[in-house]
Amino acid sequence: MARPATEELRRRNRSALLDQLHRRGPQTRAELTEALGLNRSTIGALATDLSESGHIQETTGRSTGAAGRPSTLVECVPEAETVAAVEVRADRVRLALVGLGGTLLARAEVPLEPGADGPEAAELAARLLADTPAAETVAAVPGLVDAGVVAQSTELGWVDRDFRTDLERATGRSWRVADLATAAAVGERSRGDAHRSPNLLYLHGGRGVTAGMIADGRPRRGSSIMLGHVVVNPGGQKCRCGLHGCLEAEMGTFEQSATIEATTTAAWMGDTAAREVVHRSGGLLGRALGSVVTAATPDEVLFGGWLRELYLSSAAAVRSSLAEATLPQLRARLRLRTPALGSEGPLIGAAETGFEALIGEMR
Amino acid sequence: MARPATEELRRRNRSALLDQLHRRGPQTRAELTEALGLNRSTIGALATDLSESGHIQETTGRSTGAAGRPSTLVECVPEAETVAAVEVRADRVRLALVGLGGTLLARAEVPLEPGADGPEAAELAARLLADTPAAETVAAVPGLVDAGVVAQSTELGWVDRDFRTDLERATGRSWRVADLATAAAVGERSRGDAHRSPNLLYLHGGRGVTAGMIADGRPRRGSSIMLGHVVVNPGGQKCRCGLHGCLEAEMGTFEQSATIEATTTAAWMGDTAAREVVHRSGGLLGRALGSVVTAATPDEVLFGGWLRELYLSSAAAVRSSLAEATLPQLRARLRLRTPALGSEGPLIGAAETGFEALIGEMR
Repeated sequence: MARPATEELRRRNRSALLDQLHRRGPQTRAELTEALGLNRSTIGALATDLSESGHIQETTGRSTGAAGRPSTLVECVPEAETVAAVEVRADRVRLALVGLGGTLLARAEVPLEPGADGPEAAELAARLLADTPAAETVAAVPGLVDAGVVAQSTELGWVDRDFRTDLERATGRSWRVADLATAAAVGERSRGDAHRSPNLLYLHGGRGVTAGMIADGRPRRGSSIMLGHVVVNPGGQKCRCGLHGCLEAEMGTFEQSATIEATTTAAWMGDTAAREVVHRSGGLLGRALGSVVTAATPDEVLFGGWLRELYLSSAAAVRSSLAEATLPQLRARLRLRTPALGSEGPLIGAAETGFEALIGEMR
Repeated sequence: MARPATEELRRRNRSALLDQLHRRGPQTRAELTEALGLNRSTIGALATDLSESGHIQETTGRSTGAAGRPSTLVECVPEAETVAAVEVRADRVRLALVGLGGTLLARAEVPLEPGADGPEAAELAARLLADTPAAETVAAVPGLVDAGVVAQSTELGWVDRDFRTDLERATGRSWRVADLATAAAVGERSRGDAHRSPNLLYLHGGRGVTAGMIADGRPRRGSSIMLGHVVVNPGGQKCRCGLHGCLEAEMGTFEQSATIEATTTAAWMGDTAAREVVHRSGGLLGRALGSVVTAATPDEVLFGGWLRELYLSSAAAVRSSLAEATLPQLRARLRLRTPALGSEGPLIGAAETGFEALIGEMR
């Protein structure tokens, strides 16, 4: 019985070491010893093992300490394990091939026809992917995603689309499908500057407004928050979705990035009508956000996609209307800001979702 | 190196076996073998080990199979590990002493003076606890709880009250403090009939309206949802909390259980005015719930406390107003119902929170 237990422990330690290097970057053996709480000889054995399997390499790097002696760093070999991340948007499909340690190895992009359906988007993903040797393939799609099915996507106009099956048919590989906002939240937490927020809400403005949540440090996979369909004005404007007074319906003109950019720019330039639109939209956003903050109690809210522009142009309106819709105890610890990774967040997060599975399976 | 690994594995298996018996009740060795995926000799060794430490016992129980031969059941010894759960409400403090396997060993209750502060409530908890030999002590408090601090409790009138410290001073023991609605959600999931819902929302109506959430099978500890302060009517009635148009403020008369009971009873009897009040309140509840369902995407919503009466008297109004405030894709899989454990849910859930920690620490 001793042998399987030891083997299991060794696999677990290997996986923990690789995870540490993947997330935190090159480190000395001494740093790894401390971070993982293992002794030096165990770290040495694991490093030898992972070098032999081609996952890590040791290089002479930065100098450390008073002596200034250059120390040997342990780092991931990016090509040892790769993840292909695909982002599907209304007008394009993008691919990033990411290596172990988070290195971007390749990227590509093709335009998507307006109104394209699942199989068409999957076909483009297949073309981008070609014979890429990725161990994991992950797609990020804006909308409400559940177990590979895109239940609702305002941006793509899809309803109950089994996109995972579309991708599997087009590529002959197995896929994970994440919603774009949750993927972006994962990206910000793993590679952005939101490491310390166990409860992170990422708002994404595309041709629909969604949100992704990290709760207690873990992404709520596949269940994005349909922020655009929070009712901010009961009995108000009729929305495409059939409800009345949804954030998206009430914002009206703010549906397309072109419009928002023109409007926020005009507002900056002093155009009174544009300022009024921006102020009003910021206020509506703050009100919708208020309900979500009450229900999801994040520590940090990031404004991504075109909501970034809107937030930067109307922060005071967002904050004051948020203050009218949430208890002071919930606002006290809340930080509002823009994403560190910009529009790369979803692709980076989708890749990280793949790496988490990959490294987890080595256990 | 083989020895610690084996020891660690043995501890893990012990903990898994005890967890299985604690949650699922008495089982045969064959059932345990199947449930845990361990072989018969490992189960045998663990059973001997846990019998010697006094945690389990084997008894001749129910007859199984065609032969009808009575089979030996493995079961928890309740007294081997106990958790004391305390519930603090506006007018009382209750204690339940729960043994391994979920057996109720003792209970007690004392009235709480209206407006009592943290130290007074803690003093009563200490008196109820006396010299109970509980390994874990857990308190459930209605309101927004974060790391032992009651940030806001409408029911108790507490703001930023460090109740964990109050309890530790009064009893000389260390405490976990959970919010009542989250504790009730844990109770329903572990001992009620909500086993299969990984995303469960428990609404609690007391002298405030809060909600607790289980997301992806795990309680969102210490962050209850302040459902009563979701703004359902922007710019509406001024609420005690300072906001305008909160659910609690708009419901008005529905603050006290006495009122709700009288009103729902009158509505059942055909009183038109009472029916109107119930219908209107159900509609407001559905609207607030709509925002929370959009943000938290539960599979199941349970109406606890006096919301149970309100829901049973106004289900159609709740559902129709929920339909106006959530996307059909989110409602399609949503079940609305009343809690199986009734008003015992919070105490049972608080005890389970303690057992989870206790059994986890044995690992």
